[in-house]
Amino acid sequence: MADAVTICECFARDGLQHEPVFLPTATKVALLERFVAAGFTRVEATAYSHPGRVPAFADASEVLAAAPRGGGVALKATCPNPRAVERALADLDRGAGADELSLLVSASESHTERNLRTTRARQWERVTEMARLAGGRFRLIGVVSVAFGCPFEGHVDPGRVIEDVARFADLGAGAVTLGDTTGVATPVAVAAMFRRLETELPGLPVIAHFHNTRGAGIANAVAALEAGCRNFDSALGGVGGHPAAIEYGAGLTGNVCTEDLVALFEAMGVRTGLDLDALAAASRACEAALGRELHSMVARAGFARSA
Amino acid sequence: MADAVTICECFARDGLQHEPVFLPTATKVALLERFVAAGFTRVEATAYSHPGRVPAFADASEVLAAAPRGGGVALKATCPNPRAVERALADLDRGAGADELSLLVSASESHTERNLRTTRARQWERVTEMARLAGGRFRLIGVVSVAFGCPFEGHVDPGRVIEDVARFADLGAGAVTLGDTTGVATPVAVAAMFRRLETELPGLPVIAHFHNTRGAGIANAVAALEAGCRNFDSALGGVGGHPAAIEYGAGLTGNVCTEDLVALFEAMGVRTGLDLDALAAASRACEAALGRELHSMVARAGFARSA
Repeated sequence: MADAVTICECFARDGLQHEPVFLPTATKVALLERFVAAGFTRVEATAYSHPGRVPAFADASEVLAAAPRGGGVALKATCPNPRAVERALADLDRGAGADELSLLVSASESHTERNLRTTRARQWERVTEMARLAGGRFRLIGVVSVAFGCPFEGHVDPGRVIEDVARFADLGAGAVTLGDTTGVATPVAVAAMFRRLETELPGLPVIAHFHNTRGAGIANAVAALEAGCRNFDSALGGVGGHPAAIEYGAGLTGNVCTEDLVALFEAMGVRTGLDLDALAAASRACEAALGRELHSMVARAGFARSA
Repeated sequence: MADAVTICECFARDGLQHEPVFLPTATKVALLERFVAAGFTRVEATAYSHPGRVPAFADASEVLAAAPRGGGVALKATCPNPRAVERALADLDRGAGADELSLLVSASESHTERNLRTTRARQWERVTEMARLAGGRFRLIGVVSVAFGCPFEGHVDPGRVIEDVARFADLGAGAVTLGDTTGVATPVAVAAMFRRLETELPGLPVIAHFHNTRGAGIANAVAALEAGCRNFDSALGGVGGHPAAIEYGAGLTGNVCTEDLVALFEAMGVRTGLDLDALAAASRACEAALGRELHSMVARAGFARSA
């Protein structure tokens, strides 16, 4: 069994993307400070989305300018298109850039069309252009969404996902994320995928990004862990989720809850490097920021384990 | 991997035990009919608790008299003491008894004292007396609670749990349930326990009864499955939970949600024998009976899997 994993806290980006209320920049920055204080070394901070399309991140540059820096913490920003990479470069030139950029493809044509409004071929051209623009100045994180199944097409060929992962590696990505965007993965499929990646692309960090749409998110994370995965995405309070999932009836489709994932990993003897008291405080701060009780079970039961 | 499991639907007993509002007998019976219609072959129907102590089951005999019968369905009733077994026998003599009785011990002294108000030694005497009284007229289901950790003592020696399981088998139990009463089990501990039971007590059906107090219930069920377990308890809507867990700060501590467990098992190719449309209808009926949205993710997202 693994003895250490790295968890990227995604509340501030994947978590907030579809929140109807805009969180003030100062609130976002205060949350990022709590995440860093709790010990996260990778934090998804914002997205360089078009502010008209995703108002939640209209303050992307301001958030990155004020976010906590140093101490080995990497701040990640999502880039949907080449214009976003240009903005990321401009912020970097001002000394307030992201450390990591994530670039996205979808494993199915239908999901690419519905979510990215293009074709897979065209999206790969865009991603290639974005990687070229980034010019080695950021750690690039490739993201393959609907990697375990598509809400429109159903089955997704694992071979195609692995080709996508390899293609990101060829473009210079330092890690590749597999997204179970609408929560259809199973522990069996997850284990098979991670074992195959270990064989076919050894040494490439692959990040498990699971949603808890049908309650299997933690079980899938455990399966990934057991199959060798050492990198996980999660969001405090289990917020977030993908609009296509919601539109097509998947109900609440938030990220795996950081609190529950961390409590279980620590109880299993897997070190997360996090301070559980500070994490509990961050969990409460996230609920306060959104003004409601979120979805973590551990937020109610407490981090202390009895076994 | 397993290709078939048996799930016992526990909504009507473990689920309702601490509900503050008494569900009318006719409502309970209608729910039991839905459970049987969905294909459950084992259903926890009620408890022969003292009606003053657990008002929810004041109608135990009436529920069993009106409950659906036949077709290979086994109805289970919980018996806290010898008087309860006498009531079960009287109902059986009237032709309206339970098929299975569950008899309970706790794996820790502190939990035995707080929950059963006696010592382990005395509780084993009571259970022995209850098994003698039952006289082979019921299938006896032993239950070992706090089998993976105690809210008061913390660590529970797995060797003691296995001794308890063996002792139930010696008393003639047809199966033994391991209860993770306050949700402190981990997949690693669960896998180790079930593998050890398979070695030390081969052939004895062991039932995984997990609570989702900290969000790990489904992950623990998958671990049990992979370690050879073929029998599971769960409750529609994830209701239920143990008062000691609630008193001692464990928050919501309901059973694993039947909907989510079944959806995942079926998606993994593990047959549950259940009709998913009828199960979805039963899920909605449980929410209607309690007048609120319950905890299943699949109840919101739907049973249909896309992968």
